Amino acid sequence: MMSRYLSSKFRNLEPYVPGEQPQDMQRYIKLNTNESPFPPSPKALDYAAQNTRSLNLYSDPNSAELTKALARTYGVEPDMVLATNGSDEILNFAFMAYTDRENPALFADVTYGFYPVFAELNGSAYETIPLRDDFSLCIDDYIDKKGTVFIANPNAPTGVALPVSEIERLVASDTSRIVVVDEAYVDFGAESCIPLTRKYPNVLICQTFSKSRSFAGGRLGYGIGSGQIISDLNAIKYSTNPYNINSMTSAMGIGILSDEAYTRANCRTIMENRKYTVEGLEKLGFKVLPSSANFIFVSSDRVEGGQFYSILKEKGILVRHFTKERISNWCRVTIGSRRSMEAFLKAAKEVLDEKL
Amino acid sequence: MMSRYLSSKFRNLEPYVPGEQPQDMQRYIKLNTNESPFPPSPKALDYAAQNTRSLNLYSDPNSAELTKALARTYGVEPDMVLATNGSDEILNFAFMAYTDRENPALFADVTYGFYPVFAELNGSAYETIPLRDDFSLCIDDYIDKKGTVFIANPNAPTGVALPVSEIERLVASDTSRIVVVDEAYVDFGAESCIPLTRKYPNVLICQTFSKSRSFAGGRLGYGIGSGQIISDLNAIKYSTNPYNINSMTSAMGIGILSDEAYTRANCRTIMENRKYTVEGLEKLGFKVLPSSANFIFVSSDRVEGGQFYSILKEKGILVRHFTKERISNWCRVTIGSRRSMEAFLKAAKEVLDEKL
Repeated sequence: MMSRYLSSKFRNLEPYVPGEQPQDMQRYIKLNTNESPFPPSPKALDYAAQNTRSLNLYSDPNSAELTKALARTYGVEPDMVLATNGSDEILNFAFMAYTDRENPALFADVTYGFYPVFAELNGSAYETIPLRDDFSLCIDDYIDKKGTVFIANPNAPTGVALPVSEIERLVASDTSRIVVVDEAYVDFGAESCIPLTRKYPNVLICQTFSKSRSFAGGRLGYGIGSGQIISDLNAIKYSTNPYNINSMTSAMGIGILSDEAYTRANCRTIMENRKYTVEGLEKLGFKVLPSSANFIFVSSDRVEGGQFYSILKEKGILVRHFTKERISNWCRVTIGSRRSMEAFLKAAKEVLDEKL
Repeated sequence: MMSRYLSSKFRNLEPYVPGEQPQDMQRYIKLNTNESPFPPSPKALDYAAQNTRSLNLYSDPNSAELTKALARTYGVEPDMVLATNGSDEILNFAFMAYTDRENPALFADVTYGFYPVFAELNGSAYETIPLRDDFSLCIDDYIDKKGTVFIANPNAPTGVALPVSEIERLVASDTSRIVVVDEAYVDFGAESCIPLTRKYPNVLICQTFSKSRSFAGGRLGYGIGSGQIISDLNAIKYSTNPYNINSMTSAMGIGILSDEAYTRANCRTIMENRKYTVEGLEKLGFKVLPSSANFIFVSSDRVEGGQFYSILKEKGILVRHFTKERISNWCRVTIGSRRSMEAFLKAAKEVLDEKL
């Protein structure tokens, strides 16, 4: 796969594998990449039509207006915000800035699969720390460790969330250690750690427009942290890709932020659909982890995870299955529209019935 | 500036400084960041309106349709093309993949100022090789060196171009060495090395939609090289930011490629305006390097470079001045509309008149 030219530092690099995007996507109910079933707020297009900078000109490398809008939304100062090309970019910047050969990244054994890739990419040491048997994260496992901690909260692919008080305990325990909280899914019922960024110099929150704000195709994420953290990450950004956000995405992002009521209403709908789906699955005898995200993690004693995924795919429903041993008996199912979840429950019932 | 948390590997990092973007930009004729004075092809918007994937869904991580359109445009196979978030991203990927502590980057002392930043960012060794006194590049200086060569052709900020035959001599001299040709400005009168990618495994061409295609605000670049090079760079991309291009930019890029006649006509106009500007400057006694780009590099015995920049700015005309010693007596001037260049020539004449 790799050429004889490639730097030997990447010999062990195993790229991240995004959720599949079949060419004949129309045939599927797509519950595999945690997208929103709703379009972005109509204000996105309205605002972009009025305010997109001429496209022959470079986008604003500071994304100043967008940054101000994010700061207003979260009650922080603009110099505590960095907008990025999706939240993978801010996460990569954090791995670059705050991990290396001596200072390892610390994260759970079951979490966002990109973390070990970022660590490898940047030549950083890393250590994975097992979740408890119920897939909950024990903060005490991290308190005495040296390294930069990455916590997805709610966690992926489990959906399990920690309260802010637990994360604050870790942040406060040693302010010489950076804690990165990846809140891609926080708007579906978990608590955000953003308020901690005004109290502590050593915490970075990463969020995205891809989930609750229905803008995965626009590629927009951001980090919120102390001024000094954001200054570090800006130095990285200006050494990588200064014009990282295009003008259309930037303008649409501001439009979306002007319509938080729309976002909150969509999140409520997703949470209702989640409740509906979980109840349906439990009635059928499935195990479902308690989720604060726009997806659920599902398993059954009666059908192995990989098989559940495959049979659902034959039935036209795409969910995500990970082959990693500890979770190979589970599937991650995105919560979509009520109609999609009805179709999913019907198919899930059929899978079990066929197994009888 | 940098926090106590930042990895020591970045102690010497000096981020790239993009051309200034004053808040009161309307007051200026902006000839400082090599943008096009024309809007992107109207086909960009037409195509995007019909073909942009729903924005709540992730963009295609393979950018398959855009990649095919680029391959068609340049007569190569799709697996020889990688689309990126601007050409800075493909350049950074090339530094990541093909330079390290042992294998240095080799580039001219006067060239795109981002190359040393990319090298520092990636912890790579690098060596700068002086241009000749007339700012031309001597290929023989590179033939016996070990390392990955980066050549901007035409060069920035000088505008001076090499013929393909010279670059081919370097590529062919040692196929175990990668040669990266940064052709951001190639469409304004230089020769492209893309045909070499079908003959040699060791050459990568980087281009952009930001200049000749008037789409700097959309953030779109690409690399063209042998299948094995593109495979390496894809491994890097999938370890960094798989969904690197948003859906709107991708669709608009395809629209722009469907209208190459528009691009070529704009390039001809810029080349005519360049000729007009150079003749005007030479009549006034300025020195201008021979340019194959959408900018010219200008100096005068009668006004120092930094001063020329400052007085022009007072007069409402923004050009770019670099403080680096060897070129501190020069200014880089983007070629814009005829009207802008008339205003620039008028102001340039005034600067000299005031100096009498």
